[in-house]
Amino acid sequence: MAEFFNVLSLEEARCIIEEHWPQAAMEKVGLKEALGKTLAVCAVAPEDLPPFSRSTVDGFAVLAADVHGASEAIPAFLSLAGEVTMGIPPEAELHAGQCLWIPTGGMLPAGADAVVMVEYTERLDQDTVLITRPVAMGENVIRAGEDCRAGDEVLPAGRSLRPQDIGVLAGLGITEIPVLSPLRFGVISTGDEVVSIDTTPSMGQVRDVNSYVLGAALKQWGVNVRYYGVIADDYRRLQETIAAALKENDCVIMSGGSSVGTRDLSLEVLLSFPDSKLLFHGLSIRPGKPTLAVQVGSQLVIGLPGHPVSALMVLEVLVGPMMPERSRRTGVAILADSIASQAGRDDFVRVRLDQSSEMARAIPVHGKAGLIRVMSEAHGFIHIPRQKQGLNKGETVTVHLF
Amino acid sequence: MAEFFNVLSLEEARCIIEEHWPQAAMEKVGLKEALGKTLAVCAVAPEDLPPFSRSTVDGFAVLAADVHGASEAIPAFLSLAGEVTMGIPPEAELHAGQCLWIPTGGMLPAGADAVVMVEYTERLDQDTVLITRPVAMGENVIRAGEDCRAGDEVLPAGRSLRPQDIGVLAGLGITEIPVLSPLRFGVISTGDEVVSIDTTPSMGQVRDVNSYVLGAALKQWGVNVRYYGVIADDYRRLQETIAAALKENDCVIMSGGSSVGTRDLSLEVLLSFPDSKLLFHGLSIRPGKPTLAVQVGSQLVIGLPGHPVSALMVLEVLVGPMMPERSRRTGVAILADSIASQAGRDDFVRVRLDQSSEMARAIPVHGKAGLIRVMSEAHGFIHIPRQKQGLNKGETVTVHLF
Repeated sequence: MAEFFNVLSLEEARCIIEEHWPQAAMEKVGLKEALGKTLAVCAVAPEDLPPFSRSTVDGFAVLAADVHGASEAIPAFLSLAGEVTMGIPPEAELHAGQCLWIPTGGMLPAGADAVVMVEYTERLDQDTVLITRPVAMGENVIRAGEDCRAGDEVLPAGRSLRPQDIGVLAGLGITEIPVLSPLRFGVISTGDEVVSIDTTPSMGQVRDVNSYVLGAALKQWGVNVRYYGVIADDYRRLQETIAAALKENDCVIMSGGSSVGTRDLSLEVLLSFPDSKLLFHGLSIRPGKPTLAVQVGSQLVIGLPGHPVSALMVLEVLVGPMMPERSRRTGVAILADSIASQAGRDDFVRVRLDQSSEMARAIPVHGKAGLIRVMSEAHGFIHIPRQKQGLNKGETVTVHLF
Repeated sequence: MAEFFNVLSLEEARCIIEEHWPQAAMEKVGLKEALGKTLAVCAVAPEDLPPFSRSTVDGFAVLAADVHGASEAIPAFLSLAGEVTMGIPPEAELHAGQCLWIPTGGMLPAGADAVVMVEYTERLDQDTVLITRPVAMGENVIRAGEDCRAGDEVLPAGRSLRPQDIGVLAGLGITEIPVLSPLRFGVISTGDEVVSIDTTPSMGQVRDVNSYVLGAALKQWGVNVRYYGVIADDYRRLQETIAAALKENDCVIMSGGSSVGTRDLSLEVLLSFPDSKLLFHGLSIRPGKPTLAVQVGSQLVIGLPGHPVSALMVLEVLVGPMMPERSRRTGVAILADSIASQAGRDDFVRVRLDQSSEMARAIPVHGKAGLIRVMSEAHGFIHIPRQKQGLNKGETVTVHLF
């Protein structure tokens, strides 16, 4: 039991978690299901985009040389040779002295090399257009292949797909993409005093808050969650449940009970599995000291504190950094109160944000560790690194929103 | 057609959108499905929490008066009268001079009024415990009802539910809650030149990027999206499709085609519905000038520009503010380059974020409006309000992440 007192720093613990983090499988999804998924391999353009030169404005396709020096005082006179219809390649070819009406997105006719915006033109008669401003070659035109060339890498592997990324894929006609399958996490609550939330607790009992808090936090990171309910302090049932959860998931998150006996039992059961190994037990962070991690075969089991606020905070700071960047959010604020902290320990302090002034103020949320309601008063938390002995009122701090 | 030239400010347009915004229905969901949903009515505690006084530490339940003045030099001697078991109300009552072992979360025995942490105690023999530090009355104890009282409002209506909010509900035994049903949006792309993304465009045609970009943007705000594909410039088909979309959704988003003819046709069809009314056509924003809104009966149809980048930007700045706060994200950065802007117009400039230094730098993303790939290079956008004629390099700016 000597390892029990090897209390790790947060940084060391994060490294261990990263090392044992499950590898996500790959699956193909259509673009309508791609939002928020992680691209498994880089996306490569299968073709040039656009495949033809297009106008970016409503106006007249011209030869730039024909309108050189044109002005309101001395406009260029061009003969109207027809118009470009959307979606159809123009039949007419443009010759010197001519122009063609072209709508935004229309295909540039052969012979033309620029487009003059309609605002700088005047229709003199049925056949003649006055141009009152010059254009450079290529002005108001996107050339064929200017957006990307066949073979270009357009999105990197690992990109958490946003609407605009999905747009790029749609534009290239990529209808299906390989993405990482969601990780599967099993959530187990333990403790003799913990009862399911749909039962009325007897005196001395509390409801299973952790399954719901931890399950929701994992879901917001795109993880598939399976719930295993509350397991009382019973060696055999705990062993069976953990075995089932390991079989059905990539990773298992346990929490509670807050009593020493429950904690010891959970660890004893975990280490009873063949090929199991204690990775750490005890972190120099607050809240979250009794956190543990065990490797079972090639899988990871993380044991979180029993109290919901502590359990959620540890999940955020230990497991959160492994999740796609898009699902984590930070903000900047001015600290409204000084906070003391013990050097050598990473402290996480929940804060409320006051957005009434231009720069947000972060107000530490106090309250006893056991209170549940206080938990929902915070907008986020700030991290006081182990090197620091606290933060001063007025400092600019990064707030991790949650 | 005089209204065509009543170009509105963004602020005026937002007011109109807000005024015509659909009312969400209400539905009940279980706590496991509550993440990110909007609470429809405030949540009220049905009972006191906790229902009994609990210890927040592992230690000994005592009478504070018994350990008054205790120190390492002169400890208090208390006789051990038993222990509190998790989940079971203690049978023993505590009398002066006695203490009971109590685990974190254990129910405080009658007679006790505080708990001394185990770290400040020493077990002298089987029946005697030395206490080396005094405690105040109520120390290390959460009293019955201290978290909340029956009847307290614990979460406000309109709260977008986070894991910790769900935890509060779980703790109170609230297993189901009324939330706002997701709004239903229909998405229609128009334009003769636009083809479905799974077909190879002929010369002059482009793929339907907008359905995918706009659909994904709406989905990330928790909206249910129904896709109606691409409708060519055909009066009857457009009319039928819009009618179907209005019937099946709360709101309809149309986009493209970029040609003037398509835009005019869409508006003509929209205004052909009985009880329809043009709300605005033309906004003094860039990009997004040709945006329009029409009221059909009691429903709202928004017409966005044809170009994907413009369509997405307008959706973000016009429709985004109507969505739950949690789904919108902002950051602060230093502007890396000066940007000119025209007074009297709201400009939205896409930026890339360089996070390599302590304070992020926002680098404007340039590139022709028609390019699709550039769209995915931006991390967000900044807003240059109509009162300003630009922003200076080095200014602190708010970046709306997207």
